[in-house]
Amino acid sequence: MCPPYSLVIFPLRALSAPTIVSLMANYGALDHVFVALADPTRRAGIQRLGSGPASVSDLAGAFSITLPSFMKHLRTLESSGLVRTSKSGRVRTCTLHRERLALVDDWLAEQRCLWEQRTDRLEQVIADHQEDT
Amino acid sequence: MCPPYSLVIFPLRALSAPTIVSLMANYGALDHVFVALADPTRRAGIQRLGSGPASVSDLAGAFSITLPSFMKHLRTLESSGLVRTSKSGRVRTCTLHRERLALVDDWLAEQRCLWEQRTDRLEQVIADHQEDT
Repeated sequence: MCPPYSLVIFPLRALSAPTIVSLMANYGALDHVFVALADPTRRAGIQRLGSGPASVSDLAGAFSITLPSFMKHLRTLESSGLVRTSKSGRVRTCTLHRERLALVDDWLAEQRCLWEQRTDRLEQVIADHQEDT
Repeated sequence: MCPPYSLVIFPLRALSAPTIVSLMANYGALDHVFVALADPTRRAGIQRLGSGPASVSDLAGAFSITLPSFMKHLRTLESSGLVRTSKSGRVRTCTLHRERLALVDDWLAEQRCLWEQRTDRLEQVIADHQEDT
């Protein structure tokens, strides 16, 4: 049995209302996560934060772009939920929210599960054909 | 040792020219793959094609959007390399190019590797501190 995302393309009547709401929310969240990952500066920011939290100025300093350009990327990362920021005094610190990347893992796992089911079906067809001949 | 993407944020002098060219190409390819995945219709198309190739008309018929809108999504999927199309007579068939999703797997694996290295370093710091006290 593959993870629940796969059910979205099957009749929704088979699912309870809370499950449907949860799946729709995850689908929207995935859109934002993939948009955030679709830029090399943002991916490099995620990679840097994988080594630990960093102040906005330290993080921005690692890139050869203007601070306003970097802040735009940071807002995209924040709205995706991949990065959280908190302010202490005059320093704003960025932290990676790793759990958010699990949405991507789950989606990929579901695709692999569906591919394996297809392979199983193909093997069954071949086995049935060999029995018939 | 983490996968090669992580080297991009380290001095490029450490890498050979062909390796740098290959890494840059993968980085560009990742941009297109993540853009393609950032839409629920395109993800559902990938999911459908995971069960086997489909004609453009059959695939488009699974979505409640106009054919021109679907064709725009299909062009994005094609330019990302996730989907390939071929024409036989009057039928154009779409096929999923699964290997392209491995780029996402590799990128995620690299992030996890870097997180584990960080955890190892933190554990070492704690162990050193306990030895000192």
